[in-house]
Amino acid sequence: MKNILVIHGPNLNLLGQREPGIYGAQTLDTINQAIMEKAKALGLAVECFQSNHEGEIIDKIHDMKAYDGCVINAGAYTHYSYAILDAIKAVQKPFIEVHLSNIHARDAFRHVSVIAPACKGQIAGFGADSYLLALDAIAKIV
Amino acid sequence: MKNILVIHGPNLNLLGQREPGIYGAQTLDTINQAIMEKAKALGLAVECFQSNHEGEIIDKIHDMKAYDGCVINAGAYTHYSYAILDAIKAVQKPFIEVHLSNIHARDAFRHVSVIAPACKGQIAGFGADSYLLALDAIAKIV
Amino acid sequence: MKNILVIHGPNLNLLGQREPGIYGAQTLDTINQAIMEKAKALGLAVECFQSNHEGEIIDKIHDMKAYDGCVINAGAYTHYSYAILDAIKAVQKPFIEVHLSNIHARDAFRHVSVIAPACKGQIAGFGADSYLLALDAIAKIV
Amino acid sequence: MKNILVIHGPNLNLLGQREPGIYGAQTLDTINQAIMEKAKALGLAVECFQSNHEGEIIDKIHDMKAYDGCVINAGAYTHYSYAILDAIKAVQKPFIEVHLSNIHARDAFRHVSVIAPACKGQIAGFGADSYLLALDAIAKIV
Amino acid sequence: MKNILVIHGPNLNLLGQREPGIYGAQTLDTINQAIMEKAKALGLAVECFQSNHEGEIIDKIHDMKAYDGCVINAGAYTHYSYAILDAIKAVQKPFIEVHLSNIHARDAFRHVSVIAPACKGQIAGFGADSYLLALDAIAKIV
Amino acid sequence: MKNILVIHGPNLNLLGQREPGIYGAQTLDTINQAIMEKAKALGLAVECFQSNHEGEIIDKIHDMKAYDGCVINAGAYTHYSYAILDAIKAVQKPFIEVHLSNIHARDAFRHVSVIAPACKGQIAGFGADSYLLALDAIAKIV
Amino acid sequence: MKNILVIHGPNLNLLGQREPGIYGAQTLDTINQAIMEKAKALGLAVECFQSNHEGEIIDKIHDMKAYDGCVINAGAYTHYSYAILDAIKAVQKPFIEVHLSNIHARDAFRHVSVIAPACKGQIAGFGADSYLLALDAIAKIV
Amino acid sequence: MKNILVIHGPNLNLLGQREPGIYGAQTLDTINQAIMEKAKALGLAVECFQSNHEGEIIDKIHDMKAYDGCVINAGAYTHYSYAILDAIKAVQKPFIEVHLSNIHARDAFRHVSVIAPACKGQIAGFGADSYLLALDAIAKIV
Amino acid sequence: MKNILVIHGPNLNLLGQREPGIYGAQTLDTINQAIMEKAKALGLAVECFQSNHEGEIIDKIHDMKAYDGCVINAGAYTHYSYAILDAIKAVQKPFIEVHLSNIHARDAFRHVSVIAPACKGQIAGFGADSYLLALDAIAKIV
Amino acid sequence: MKNILVIHGPNLNLLGQREPGIYGAQTLDTINQAIMEKAKALGLAVECFQSNHEGEIIDKIHDMKAYDGCVINAGAYTHYSYAILDAIKAVQKPFIEVHLSNIHARDAFRHVSVIAPACKGQIAGFGADSYLLALDAIAKIV
Amino acid sequence: MKNILVIHGPNLNLLGQREPGIYGAQTLDTINQAIMEKAKALGLAVECFQSNHEGEIIDKIHDMKAYDGCVINAGAYTHYSYAILDAIKAVQKPFIEVHLSNIHARDAFRHVSVIAPACKGQIAGFGADSYLLALDAIAKIV
Amino acid sequence: MKNILVIHGPNLNLLGQREPGIYGAQTLDTINQAIMEKAKALGLAVECFQSNHEGEIIDKIHDMKAYDGCVINAGAYTHYSYAILDAIKAVQKPFIEVHLSNIHARDAFRHVSVIAPACKGQIAGFGADSYLLALDAIAKIV
Repeated sequence: MKNILVIHGPNLNLLGQREPGIYGAQTLDTINQAIMEKAKALGLAVECFQSNHEGEIIDKIHDMKAYDGCVINAGAYTHYSYAILDAIKAVQKPFIEVHLSNIHARDAFRHVSVIAPACKGQIAGFGADSYLLALDAIAKIV
Repeated sequence: MKNILVIHGPNLNLLGQREPGIYGAQTLDTINQAIMEKAKALGLAVECFQSNHEGEIIDKIHDMKAYDGCVINAGAYTHYSYAILDAIKAVQKPFIEVHLSNIHARDAFRHVSVIAPACKGQIAGFGADSYLLALDAIAKIV
Repeated sequence: MKNILVIHGPNLNLLGQREPGIYGAQTLDTINQAIMEKAKALGLAVECFQSNHEGEIIDKIHDMKAYDGCVINAGAYTHYSYAILDAIKAVQKPFIEVHLSNIHARDAFRHVSVIAPACKGQIAGFGADSYLLALDAIAKIV
Repeated sequence: MKNILVIHGPNLNLLGQREPGIYGAQTLDTINQAIMEKAKALGLAVECFQSNHEGEIIDKIHDMKAYDGCVINAGAYTHYSYAILDAIKAVQKPFIEVHLSNIHARDAFRHVSVIAPACKGQIAGFGADSYLLALDAIAKIV
Repeated sequence: MKNILVIHGPNLNLLGQREPGIYGAQTLDTINQAIMEKAKALGLAVECFQSNHEGEIIDKIHDMKAYDGCVINAGAYTHYSYAILDAIKAVQKPFIEVHLSNIHARDAFRHVSVIAPACKGQIAGFGADSYLLALDAIAKIV
Repeated sequence: MKNILVIHGPNLNLLGQREPGIYGAQTLDTINQAIMEKAKALGLAVECFQSNHEGEIIDKIHDMKAYDGCVINAGAYTHYSYAILDAIKAVQKPFIEVHLSNIHARDAFRHVSVIAPACKGQIAGFGADSYLLALDAIAKIV
Repeated sequence: MKNILVIHGPNLNLLGQREPGIYGAQTLDTINQAIMEKAKALGLAVECFQSNHEGEIIDKIHDMKAYDGCVINAGAYTHYSYAILDAIKAVQKPFIEVHLSNIHARDAFRHVSVIAPACKGQIAGFGADSYLLALDAIAKIV
Repeated sequence: MKNILVIHGPNLNLLGQREPGIYGAQTLDTINQAIMEKAKALGLAVECFQSNHEGEIIDKIHDMKAYDGCVINAGAYTHYSYAILDAIKAVQKPFIEVHLSNIHARDAFRHVSVIAPACKGQIAGFGADSYLLALDAIAKIV
Repeated sequence: MKNILVIHGPNLNLLGQREPGIYGAQTLDTINQAIMEKAKALGLAVECFQSNHEGEIIDKIHDMKAYDGCVINAGAYTHYSYAILDAIKAVQKPFIEVHLSNIHARDAFRHVSVIAPACKGQIAGFGADSYLLALDAIAKIV
Repeated sequence: MKNILVIHGPNLNLLGQREPGIYGAQTLDTINQAIMEKAKALGLAVECFQSNHEGEIIDKIHDMKAYDGCVINAGAYTHYSYAILDAIKAVQKPFIEVHLSNIHARDAFRHVSVIAPACKGQIAGFGADSYLLALDAIAKIV
Repeated sequence: MKNILVIHGPNLNLLGQREPGIYGAQTLDTINQAIMEKAKALGLAVECFQSNHEGEIIDKIHDMKAYDGCVINAGAYTHYSYAILDAIKAVQKPFIEVHLSNIHARDAFRHVSVIAPACKGQIAGFGADSYLLALDAIAKIV
Repeated sequence: MKNILVIHGPNLNLLGQREPGIYGAQTLDTINQAIMEKAKALGLAVECFQSNHEGEIIDKIHDMKAYDGCVINAGAYTHYSYAILDAIKAVQKPFIEVHLSNIHARDAFRHVSVIAPACKGQIAGFGADSYLLALDAIAKIV
């Protein structure tokens, strides 16, 4: 059984309250439950992790030896954290980048993902389903 | 039963021959078969369309009244065809943008999608699976 | 009697359905009728042409030997088609550029017209009346 | 009977002498006469105003309560006077921007109109006729 | 008793009518009254001055010998009047820059203040209260 | 009684030692005392919080349910932390941005505040008084 | 005997009429004849193709299996058609880019060739002789 | 005897008080006297004019029919007044641009003169002597 | 005996595993040993500190009162952490910036060091030896 | 018999040793021999000149009175030597610019030729054959 | 008696032949004679030096110990030679920058002088008189 | 015994006189002596070379066959000499780039080294010690 890490970046703990018009009305718990069920259906073991701290996200990525792949929603860090980019490159495991909203249809600064060059692919714009699609995708890769 | 249009843009007819390191070794026919099987499993009717002509792609998008949603890989037109952007906006149906390669990890000009602001979401980097994931996504939306 | 060509570019065939808040509720047929009536009143012979294909628009511009002037709404091609710019320069007849919406008050990419340097003038923002004003203008030039 | 204000910005008082190759050989008086005749034909009352002073143009725009619409050729202020932009926004009446020359076919700095976002539309490149076409246009709006 | 000059730049005379969603519903007179009362409470003599003319604002700034400090809302001139910048530098008295709206949260061109380098500080976004806060601030400086 | 949170970002704990020519000679403790006294005078309950950690600042912002408003000096994070921007947007309470120095008169990178679009207003350049003015301002808003 | 394809892009069918000061007075037929004679002399079989349609040019490039090399003058598409770039990359045959005029000495937008990265070399500025020199060059490569 | 107009732009009336480290300790009166003496020596009639108003400077330039040449220090308007540029172009008399300080060695925004393209030449950096050198130069031209 | 702090920034704990082609095959422990030996030879007391957390690095820099100088490899934070720049400026001790790889020969974003303006010098490209050379350098400065 | 000057710019004396993957394995002597033979065949007298000194290249260009045309490979000076541009303009003889590699397919800085505006045409990407093609071209021009 | 060095940069030896429309019909010898006469009149000893070599110009500037001031026309090196900038800074003598043509009215790249920050002032656009005016200016400074 | 070449670029011959606040008070001779002593200690043979001529520096680099490594301070050429970049690439020996001052903390144009991509590493900011540290570094490489 493959182990998958799901990383939720800054402000995702507020889901449900935070600009529901953009990010949807589901809480992070509900999303994590959906992730768990999907993982079960795919025969994957999944651990979900959330942090608002860039450093903690990097530390967690460094633990990738224990996992076979990672689904990451780096939140706003997506757009400037070259340190997370370097962390992903360092651990040499497959990463899939997800976003709840379609970042390419929002503010200009959100069009750029500095972590994309270290990821297999990107799924953006499907709300909580972005994670579930990413699980499907990583199931085929790992 | 929902009708879905799958649009393959310029140069995708050459899949299998075209830079297989980047785009994979599958031909467009093989991909279309995989799309058809997936659609069947999802209970969707799918029509696949390929053209190298920006104008024909726009004409086809104008036919969207006959479809409930669209999965579009606009190829290189993704990066400069404001005419396709306007076409998607005009027909007011859900579009999902897909790319075989992770465009955000390649040449700088490929990081920008001018059609993204008119699409629900974007899936990039999973080879032929990008289309299949997009079918999953559109099945939930239509 | 002078012959005038009116060129409608990409997506203008959808007028009436397409974002009526921006482009108005009239269909292209209604606009063409208004153009015909205005032309009659001005003693001009007018032919209306619409295409979503950049290449067909260029081909049509090459037919300008048969016309004394041209009113062109190049749609989104306005913003990137240097090939249409070259076509207009090549035929050496008076062209007037029109736009239904005030392109200078919309998205940044719409502020730039690459075909403007080859046109006599530009009329933008008056809906279908942009065409009628352009007919008035070209009547004085041809 | 509707009242229309026509504003001529900086250097337009020199028309006839000023670079006739670009701006034509007519003086401002001749143009104002043509405007008056056209207005009469359209059943509009028109007042013409010229100033080289940005502040006077703003003051005049603030008088718009007495008018139903405005045709403005802001001359070179078009390209940098955010104060005129704010004035137009403040009075909430329809403005039409005109230019004698096709500003989009000249120096790069003339391609940008900072007042355009507050105007209904723009007419450029028809010499004195730009004003007359704008009167036609405003007659339909007011 | 210290003398303070309050300068209101272009279009501020229209307050109350001008885009009340952005600038508030108070007229300039009401604001000036509030300023006067606040000044009285702080033991300051205040003169209020408004002009739409860049040159008059510069002339007024040159009168600073008669004042101990200045609160200036240069309106749109904030964003391009290097001449006002030079005027402020020339008189060597403390200036505080105020804005009714939060200019950093609006159009990109409003994010830049060319006069800021010559001012002690900036207060933006509190409507008429921006002036009152600036009086508090200048009271401590002069 | 309203609860106000005051957030001091990175390096503000060093106040008094850190470049006193720019930031003043007061320590953070002295400033916090002044804030407390001012709050008392305004009838506000205030909590002061300092951290050099972007993540801790985000965590603290997430606690805004317990407060009615926030005065934030995000230090250098002001200029690149889109994660703090998103945090402020998420909690939907009034924020006022303060800076000790006039950031618009210093290095170019300090002219841009990426958090400004989520704040009511900005007060910069008055040393410790920037905080006290912000308290005045927030007292009127909450 | 090697087969060479010569592609003439948009507006080249108008040669002789089109801005002869820049593009020369020869018609495309005359140029094609010169190409044929040169090819004969070099022992090459040459086919000449002209289209104003980006899509048709891409389709033709896809036929490169039947040819050993290609001389392409993509006209204005040179400067923005990433779709033609991708087509050239896809077929993996030697391409030589030619231009009648010296594009590096004209408008700034003509200095950039987006197709150059997929071509062996570029020859520009020699009128019809650009093609003949390219035939010499390709004769050595194929 | 030739008539020369000398125009002093915004803030030059403050010379002597204004940043003497940059602009020198002489007042405008002293400079005008030096100009008068130099003119006498050169056999030129000179009129000196100062204004802080862009519009008044334009009005004055329009009076150039009465003069044979002009020496202009447009102050900060040098860097953004396209209206003054147009005024100079319109009157078709020789203009020489002067600056007290070496504008090319100061803030970046001062490196650009938007009026330079309409002037014969530029003399910058010699304090009051910049005017005297310009008189020498114009004496040879008129 | 002088006390030197050596700061290793994000992802440097992974040295040896992380892209050895770029960063070398030595682990951080091996490098720290080499640093210790070199320090001993130079008569310096050295403490090595590693963190992936921007905030912890700032906190550690604030402890500089206990040290005479610092050698810092801020990893990817080098390129965007203005907060670390401010921390270094605040503590007023000599800092030397080191990098394992030659950052000026890699991705464009790595060419810029935002912390450089607060450091004495920079040593980049010598792998672990970059640290040892920096110790030599700091030994002369402290 | 026409005299042609061939100028080889900086580093071309190292051909054969210098990055043979890019520049080919031939030495400059071999290339010069091929040039001589080609010239003989074309009935041209050719002199070859190589220098690494920008000044010597300019001096040599100034000798153009003795020649009828010039083939120049300015090496890296191509991308920044405005002095060579001015030299070419000054001598008013036909110049053809050549490059061994396809500069438009390499580093971004190599895409720009500052000397191109003074040359008839450009030939790039054919190794030593670039020179031979240029001889063919210049034979027709001189 | 003061010693003045006059430096003529690249291509100025060709004066008279080189684009006389821009640079005038006088040869460098004629200009040098005029300089000598003017110098005599001013009581200055002048040496004139011309070189097309950046390095020789730098070497000559290093000789400034023997001179009291320098008039330099660095030709095209003006726009990119930071090495000449550094040379001027190093010798700490007064330099005046001259240009025959008004560089601010020509190609964009000529608007920037990288050596200006090290010069007292700049005189441009008066043909050979630019030098004579500069002698007047330097006579007052040395 | 390994042979090392040390190249001093433009203006370094003036060390000691040239802006000692930035470059230190040591002359080039003193620095060369220190280099010689250090080399002796490291068992290296060193030759020191200085030139203000870009071309001579390139010529010298071409002599690298006689050396095992090079320490280069290219002075201002660092920032624009692509010709030196190409020379370094051509000779395929290890180069170390040094600077006396911390170029990353000075004018913006000095932040960019165009020769860095061809060098092993960079050492900047340690005055004459930059050279000595570079000798240490190259001793380990050659």
